Amino acid sequence: MIVEDFLNEIISVRMTNDKTALDIIDQTLLPNKIQRIKIHTKEEIWEAIKKLRVRGAPAIGIAAAYGIALLASSIEENNYDAFYSKFKVLKEYLESSRPTAVNLFWALDRMENLILSKRDKSINEIKQLMFEEAECIREEDIQISRKIGEIGFGLMKKLKKNGHEIGILTHCNAGTLATAKYGTATAPMYIALEKGWKGTDIHVYCDETRPLLQGSRLTAFELCHVGIKTTIQCDNMASVLMKSKKIDIIFVGCDRVAKNGDTANKIGTNSVAILAKHYGIPFYVCAPSSTIDMKTPNGEKIPIEMRDPDEVTEMWYKKRMAPKKVNVFNPAFDVTDNSLITGIITEKGLCYAPFDKAFEALGM
Amino acid sequence: MIVEDFLNEIISVRMTNDKTALDIIDQTLLPNKIQRIKIHTKEEIWEAIKKLRVRGAPAIGIAAAYGIALLASSIEENNYDAFYSKFKVLKEYLESSRPTAVNLFWALDRMENLILSKRDKSINEIKQLMFEEAECIREEDIQISRKIGEIGFGLMKKLKKNGHEIGILTHCNAGTLATAKYGTATAPMYIALEKGWKGTDIHVYCDETRPLLQGSRLTAFELCHVGIKTTIQCDNMASVLMKSKKIDIIFVGCDRVAKNGDTANKIGTNSVAILAKHYGIPFYVCAPSSTIDMKTPNGEKIPIEMRDPDEVTEMWYKKRMAPKKVNVFNPAFDVTDNSLITGIITEKGLCYAPFDKAFEALGM
Repeated sequence: MIVEDFLNEIISVRMTNDKTALDIIDQTLLPNKIQRIKIHTKEEIWEAIKKLRVRGAPAIGIAAAYGIALLASSIEENNYDAFYSKFKVLKEYLESSRPTAVNLFWALDRMENLILSKRDKSINEIKQLMFEEAECIREEDIQISRKIGEIGFGLMKKLKKNGHEIGILTHCNAGTLATAKYGTATAPMYIALEKGWKGTDIHVYCDETRPLLQGSRLTAFELCHVGIKTTIQCDNMASVLMKSKKIDIIFVGCDRVAKNGDTANKIGTNSVAILAKHYGIPFYVCAPSSTIDMKTPNGEKIPIEMRDPDEVTEMWYKKRMAPKKVNVFNPAFDVTDNSLITGIITEKGLCYAPFDKAFEALGM
Repeated sequence: MIVEDFLNEIISVRMTNDKTALDIIDQTLLPNKIQRIKIHTKEEIWEAIKKLRVRGAPAIGIAAAYGIALLASSIEENNYDAFYSKFKVLKEYLESSRPTAVNLFWALDRMENLILSKRDKSINEIKQLMFEEAECIREEDIQISRKIGEIGFGLMKKLKKNGHEIGILTHCNAGTLATAKYGTATAPMYIALEKGWKGTDIHVYCDETRPLLQGSRLTAFELCHVGIKTTIQCDNMASVLMKSKKIDIIFVGCDRVAKNGDTANKIGTNSVAILAKHYGIPFYVCAPSSTIDMKTPNGEKIPIEMRDPDEVTEMWYKKRMAPKKVNVFNPAFDVTDNSLITGIITEKGLCYAPFDKAFEALGM
């Protein structure tokens, strides 16, 4: 199946067969160049996450899990406490790469819990179990995306009108590149193809997503390749599409969801949600349960990463696009108030407000 | 005065002293290069408007007035009807450069009305009067901007809090570069400096304004040069500034205002207005009365220019930033509903809803 082949070709992150490196697609080079690179050292893994070579909350979690398994395999200690102590240093180092996506912390905590629960095993066995746990995180992520996709597809089916395409808006890339496979916001679209829908039954409008253009560079790249009707627009054009009734439903991903449903996602998501509310368009957040952070009560408590001014002033080309003396405001994420969210789609079920109660009912 | 010197240095469009060319600052090269160019032929004038070397509704009007005066001066006819007929061909040609800004049509109509009213004069006298009329349009524009600036400054004064900067958001460039001088949305800021305010009494947040970045390239360039505290942000970041209460007031320009107050302005303005309404921030349109088009009943009747997909997919650098097969949605303008507008500032006074009545009361 062509879709399947393509999704496998662009797998965001995997371990090499000999377990000596992470094999990632360098997302900073897309869409012009599909290039996989191998990264080995802790500095390379940290840099790949920091510089967005691997990005997207679930993919960052998978990269961190594989990465810490790889790094731990080189710890030359046979004493458990010494091994654990060196593991902790590596874990803290990787945690410092990006502060907002909770999956980074979630995946590393899961690896730590594994080590803590296997104190009775030999260090070599623990090292092997860590690779297996990382692989397990990746496999689970695929199943999570499928389930989110099926729930989202259910929402799309209700919108299907004879002979009319369904207009879907998405922001940034919550696609297969941001996960192990299928994506979160894009999962309903890939599932639709699997269920026999044509690529022209839907029309996906991708916000380009300044400053780093994940929408036009990544989401549009993925969707065009599998034959889905795809249009890109600058972020500031989305309201015109909504006003002219071209958008029936909105799916976005997320980097962290607070207990009350406030959602941190790529900068600009909050604007999309406000516009959607203004025009009465349903707005859904696609959230693996690993992104739901019940320890964070609300959006105000989510740390927001501020990034380099050059991303705004020089774009990708190192040519200055703003006066030299100007200040630059460049938050990587914003927080969408729960009151703007129609529903949060998790692999365990579709949640409506009050979200804290809905999350608890699903056992989070 | 430094501000005055700088504003004179970057005059968007003027006639050379020998009246053989238009002397414009090439705005596509800003902020990296301040380069003035001379344009002579009808093709050069058309191209300069189409390619946004000269841009901004009032500046386009001035360029068209100067341009048609220059082109008419070369019509080698001594017979009035033959002269008028050739003028009409030139006028229609220039009108085809950009459809949305009403000032283009307004200025060319004004030049035509001049010719029609001077049928008793010699062709040479008419040619001379056309230059004078164009100069008059430019002089009037300066006075209009000053008056808009004074009214806007009055609104700013009411917001002044001891020791706190006033946060102002603007979109695109409705600055001195878009007019003869002072700009429209920026006029209150320049007037504030003239009245003795310091550049740090205000803090202007400029939306970068994709795709052509007039906010970061032009508005930030102007304001930084005169010492106003200036920050740029991507368009999709404005909601975070509003949510965190950094914005006290919003000033934008306009390309055409319909009779009911619906306002066409640079793409993204409608989003800013919806966000402002959501967060309860006053949103003002700065509109010379020449942009108020009482012949157009509402926003739906305003023609919206669609521009080249390359502006979105290749930015300014001719390097592809999106997959080749993707569709591109690239409207140059959007229409903001009158219900989202706090007030429309014209040189004749500040208008509140219902705008049609307010415009009529001011004699439009």
